[in-house]
Amino acid sequence: MTGLLGLATLLLVGKAAALSPDCVNGPLRNNTVCNTSATPLDRATALIDLFTIAEKINNTGSTSPGVPRLGLPPYQWWSEALHGVASSPGVNFSSSGNYSYATSFPQPILLGAAFDDALITAVATVVSTEARAFNNANRTGLDFWTPNINPWRDPRWGRGQETPGEDPYHLSSYVHALIDGLQGGYDPKYKRVVATCKHFAGYDMETWNGNFRYQWDAQISSQDLVEYYLPPFQSCARDSNVGAFMCSYNAFNGVPTCADEYLLQTVLREHWGWTNEQQWVVSDCDAVQNIFMPHDYASTREQAAADALNAGTDINCGTYYQNHLPAAFAQGLFNESTVTRSLVRQYSSLIRLGYFDPPEEQPYRALTWSDVDTAASQQLAYQAAVESIVLLKNDGTLPLSVKSNTSIALIGDWANATKQMQGNYFGVAPYLHSPLYAAQQLNVTVNYAQGIGGQGDPTTNNWLPVWDAADKSDIIIFAGGIDNSVESEGMDRVSINWSGAQLDMIGQLAQYGKPMVVLQMGGGQIDSSPIVSNPNISALLWGGYPGQDGGVAIMDILTGKKASAGRLPATQYPSEYIRQVPMTNMSLRPGPNNPGRTYKWYNGTAVFEFGSGMHYTNFSASINSTYNSKNFSISSLTSNCNESYMDRCTFQNFAVDVHNTGSVASDYVALGFLTGSFGPQPYPKKSLVNYQRLFNVKPGSSETATLNLTLGSLSRIDEMGNRVLYPGEYALMVDTTPLAMVNFTLSGQPAMLDKWPQPPPARTQNGTYYVSGFDGEQLLN
Amino acid sequence: MTGLLGLATLLLVGKAAALSPDCVNGPLRNNTVCNTSATPLDRATALIDLFTIAEKINNTGSTSPGVPRLGLPPYQWWSEALHGVASSPGVNFSSSGNYSYATSFPQPILLGAAFDDALITAVATVVSTEARAFNNANRTGLDFWTPNINPWRDPRWGRGQETPGEDPYHLSSYVHALIDGLQGGYDPKYKRVVATCKHFAGYDMETWNGNFRYQWDAQISSQDLVEYYLPPFQSCARDSNVGAFMCSYNAFNGVPTCADEYLLQTVLREHWGWTNEQQWVVSDCDAVQNIFMPHDYASTREQAAADALNAGTDINCGTYYQNHLPAAFAQGLFNESTVTRSLVRQYSSLIRLGYFDPPEEQPYRALTWSDVDTAASQQLAYQAAVESIVLLKNDGTLPLSVKSNTSIALIGDWANATKQMQGNYFGVAPYLHSPLYAAQQLNVTVNYAQGIGGQGDPTTNNWLPVWDAADKSDIIIFAGGIDNSVESEGMDRVSINWSGAQLDMIGQLAQYGKPMVVLQMGGGQIDSSPIVSNPNISALLWGGYPGQDGGVAIMDILTGKKASAGRLPATQYPSEYIRQVPMTNMSLRPGPNNPGRTYKWYNGTAVFEFGSGMHYTNFSASINSTYNSKNFSISSLTSNCNESYMDRCTFQNFAVDVHNTGSVASDYVALGFLTGSFGPQPYPKKSLVNYQRLFNVKPGSSETATLNLTLGSLSRIDEMGNRVLYPGEYALMVDTTPLAMVNFTLSGQPAMLDKWPQPPPARTQNGTYYVSGFDGEQLLN
Repeated sequence: MTGLLGLATLLLVGKAAALSPDCVNGPLRNNTVCNTSATPLDRATALIDLFTIAEKINNTGSTSPGVPRLGLPPYQWWSEALHGVASSPGVNFSSSGNYSYATSFPQPILLGAAFDDALITAVATVVSTEARAFNNANRTGLDFWTPNINPWRDPRWGRGQETPGEDPYHLSSYVHALIDGLQGGYDPKYKRVVATCKHFAGYDMETWNGNFRYQWDAQISSQDLVEYYLPPFQSCARDSNVGAFMCSYNAFNGVPTCADEYLLQTVLREHWGWTNEQQWVVSDCDAVQNIFMPHDYASTREQAAADALNAGTDINCGTYYQNHLPAAFAQGLFNESTVTRSLVRQYSSLIRLGYFDPPEEQPYRALTWSDVDTAASQQLAYQAAVESIVLLKNDGTLPLSVKSNTSIALIGDWANATKQMQGNYFGVAPYLHSPLYAAQQLNVTVNYAQGIGGQGDPTTNNWLPVWDAADKSDIIIFAGGIDNSVESEGMDRVSINWSGAQLDMIGQLAQYGKPMVVLQMGGGQIDSSPIVSNPNISALLWGGYPGQDGGVAIMDILTGKKASAGRLPATQYPSEYIRQVPMTNMSLRPGPNNPGRTYKWYNGTAVFEFGSGMHYTNFSASINSTYNSKNFSISSLTSNCNESYMDRCTFQNFAVDVHNTGSVASDYVALGFLTGSFGPQPYPKKSLVNYQRLFNVKPGSSETATLNLTLGSLSRIDEMGNRVLYPGEYALMVDTTPLAMVNFTLSGQPAMLDKWPQPPPARTQNGTYYVSGFDGEQLLN
Repeated sequence: MTGLLGLATLLLVGKAAALSPDCVNGPLRNNTVCNTSATPLDRATALIDLFTIAEKINNTGSTSPGVPRLGLPPYQWWSEALHGVASSPGVNFSSSGNYSYATSFPQPILLGAAFDDALITAVATVVSTEARAFNNANRTGLDFWTPNINPWRDPRWGRGQETPGEDPYHLSSYVHALIDGLQGGYDPKYKRVVATCKHFAGYDMETWNGNFRYQWDAQISSQDLVEYYLPPFQSCARDSNVGAFMCSYNAFNGVPTCADEYLLQTVLREHWGWTNEQQWVVSDCDAVQNIFMPHDYASTREQAAADALNAGTDINCGTYYQNHLPAAFAQGLFNESTVTRSLVRQYSSLIRLGYFDPPEEQPYRALTWSDVDTAASQQLAYQAAVESIVLLKNDGTLPLSVKSNTSIALIGDWANATKQMQGNYFGVAPYLHSPLYAAQQLNVTVNYAQGIGGQGDPTTNNWLPVWDAADKSDIIIFAGGIDNSVESEGMDRVSINWSGAQLDMIGQLAQYGKPMVVLQMGGGQIDSSPIVSNPNISALLWGGYPGQDGGVAIMDILTGKKASAGRLPATQYPSEYIRQVPMTNMSLRPGPNNPGRTYKWYNGTAVFEFGSGMHYTNFSASINSTYNSKNFSISSLTSNCNESYMDRCTFQNFAVDVHNTGSVASDYVALGFLTGSFGPQPYPKKSLVNYQRLFNVKPGSSETATLNLTLGSLSRIDEMGNRVLYPGEYALMVDTTPLAMVNFTLSGQPAMLDKWPQPPPARTQNGTYYVSGFDGEQLLN
């Protein structure tokens, strides 16, 4: 146990974030690290040069002890801020008073439904502002392990709620806007905070049929990898200069991602050019331990730690590096220069956060409690929910006509929701306004009955007050669906049905023949076809996890104070979908035992398509017809392209005139889908290539959305993962049921926009996929 | 919604149990129900004759409003007492002082490991005593929905912990002893309490791969049904006069069990003669609602309620009867006599509990708080744990040699367990003595480190104190395994491995080379082969959920104050087992995609067999050799049998002399297994037919166990479910690695001991099994 002896000196860092190093009077004051005119690389290198090998290794964990003899304080790398500053090892809310709460926005899956990138930047800016205020009070770190930007591949995934949805273009655009807000631009002198794109890569399953995230080996073809699983990460690394990446629990084609030099070095750093000195990779928590067990990838603990370090995992969430790198070093399993490299990355990053710089020179150091939960932030949290809520059915009952003598029944386990509205990875909200609270603010009579005691709770003992409330009321609102009791970290859903108890209650309530609204809450979509088909149910809204003011946002839409314009960021599949495809099947395209995944490939009939969402008005749209049947030469498109990454080159910016033909002012999301016959077969049904949200389009008025298409928008991915521009017939459509369309042609020879680095041949990827659980193994190999 | 109108008069019953009716001054004083010399049937009939049809229907739910105009108080039928009076709608613990706690025994899965039926009766007697004391204080009902006696078919089942194990004979014997204690004999004038055998039948899965207990249709052959799934229920109904049954959530061969006249009438009441007027069936909570949805068995809610009532479900846990029987009655879906029958059963049962009788004539009415948690009950809770804990590995390190200067490291998330030790369905315990508490009572130094933050928690951040504790200690005890965070109601396990984090920590602790003990806690078995094969791990014990004094029981065994003699009540399968058989496969015998279930049929190599358990001494055994090679004539065996149920007739009582050849006094469980070549092929590897626990067998001494074999012990079940005595070669073996064996022969023609009533032909049973989840459907049909 020699490896353990070195740990006697390892300090434990408490929950409070560390103070900054003292560059005025401390031992480092004359070191280059304290010289603000030196480059971050030089400064970090000078600091790390002072470390002994033991001190280096001791500082490879997320709970970093610093180096007391150098006056380098401990630092906690692990803070969370998925949709607001969130409880985590590095975040310390006060029990009362200042710093006892922070603005709590909707979950990303709902924010995704706004299809409003400017909103995302604004939300992220509030989050980073509040994070900085907390940091100035020594209540957070400066590094936040957000966003979760894995595309939501399978509706069962318990953590899909943390993502903006299923579409890789959408996620790429969203995360670009998010990082702008979190980091404070794409190359600021001082970063607001460091964001961390996770989980790299192929992580989108908690547990299914005996497959656990800690040991699961995702088998992904190069085509699916580049086309579906990686675009948001490319956006983070190549296009948004994110400060950090997190490697994931799962293995990818046989190699645990935190030990995968192909992913972490070849793809991330070399191919995407993510090579700034301050960019680092952290392991998901104890993913390094998992390399040893249960992945059984490395034969010893020392080898597991060295594998991860050598592959490019710079920080280990956990203590495995600190525990086992000493022995690994003694065994010659890594070079000192490798751990030095990781530490230089870490401290370069802190330097870019102003960690060693005079506070008076840094604007973010001036932020205080008065910058937290401001009126504007509260309004933004409300606005974010309003923009995002999706109207799925309306027989004309909405908006509700509410008068002072109106009585409303509010029924269901979401009616009086509090923390439910925050989903997961949340902090302390200043308030949590439920639908019930919001209804009570109206000048009406509200009859509340929870009825359903919890997710799937079939206990009809609580149902009698429901009938009483329905009897007494003019309008019935049922607020239910799912929540983190059935979808959460570590728990994928085992059904995408409404619970039998909820459906039964909804069905009985519908028999009253009164105006009736169903609120479908929670992150994952639920098959609402029985609600759609029931003529006695007036309306259906999806409200996700709407955050601190979610109830008010919902009620304002129901009563017409606000107009609905959110769009579903994920397909609502029929309930049998999950019996048609194993969760372990990573293929997007239809095949045996796979009806296809996402709106691009699903060959069944969705209950609601990706992008669905009704308004209180009607819209028409048109695209400049001069594009129609136009022919573009691939060679001239590429020869006019001078970007180093050719997919970024503009193809055309399509102006879309959107006309409100109805009688209610409303936002409108112009979704641009591309379809056609080009590139490798099979062809996707369509692909989102751009979107723009228009605001407050007045009745009878028009506004213009501009859909910017790049060469990348037109490209397809071949079997090797290369991005190629192909000749063929193209059509750009506006909206899910197209309001406008133009056709055009590309001609000439295919042109490669991006040559994909091929994986080493020894990997287990084999074209088909491997399922370690019972069924697939026998079924599919 | 006419059906709902009748509910306006339905009273809601609070948590407190109702007082008894007033037979002295109340409106019923002159009714026959208050005449203690009338028969219970006449008394109940006279009472129910006073009810209107509306009052009858209003009293069909578990929360029964009574009939105020008759002075009949509300009654809550739902109280729980799985291993002690337990929190539930009918149980109301005081927040402090008297009636604020009750004795908390080990979970049934651990009690099962004692193989001591007298212990079970003693435990159940304490439970029913305390229940009566609580009832006298108006803090419980008189009806307890315990035991869960479904055989533990699949190791994943989250509620297996509530059962005594996997073997149907063992469960039948156990439950016979249990009902004796709970009800106060098999036909007492006044029952102590009414026990409820659940869940009838075929219920042993919470959720697997999209199959939910509420909608799952268990496909079971008649052979498996009679051989495996029903024996404990037959023991309850036919042999133990249990007062109540609970029908289950699942369907059985296409029919939800609560709507299954075949199960509830043909099998339970007619075939097993469970026809006393006071015997009733309650639905699992809202299993009646489930008949409508999600089973989709009945096309309307009214039909679902009527189906259940007509099939013989007398009480509906929930309100579905109360809600929907009025309309069902209006539609002519049932006769008033049917609901009358159910109410007569209910009130006959209460009459047999003394509900209408003068308290002064009833001994149980004299029980008070002073009868709760007595010194004897505390000792029994301790003794139950001691008898049950199973020693699985010992290299001679146990019992531990502990001196005042000994230091012990106690590590793991079970070391300082509190409510963890109670499993599920528990009440407030007077105290919860953890292993840590127990170690601290020894005159030694204890170094405690939790290390593992929760089940499967891989966060190595908490590991450093573990190494520190191990460094400082002479002896290392790791207390881990699983708990209700991974096995519980509604949650089956998705792995039968130790978590990677725990195995890693155990492996590192073993490297210290110190005496090291692993405590495998939790109800379900975990594949402990890595612990068995690690030569640096000295000992392994399985401690289940050991109840209020579990830590002391464990420590007393570790230190040799007590000798271990418990036996595993369930097979410890290797981890790959759950990938070899879908949980939905109900077949016991090996077949395609099924390596077989339980020790009788499993054709792989168990990590630890059913019945495994080591001692601190050695035993030899012998059976009277005159039985060897003896030939018995089937016709004379049957012609000498005068029991109405022929399986009960004695075959032989085998005296087994057990000799303690070692140096430590110890209990010994004589397990009698039958094997041989008789009846339908395939033959089971062996079958438990009887057991007896011997107590405190002194070194060098012998004690005699008597293994009582009946004709039933020798019988096999044919494909039609008939119980038959077959000619063939038989061997009776004592213990898992046989210490003694005799062979004998049966000759002549097969003789039917029990002709099984055949199911109606319309059912979906088809010999193979149907899996509603993705994989099996395509794989197996």
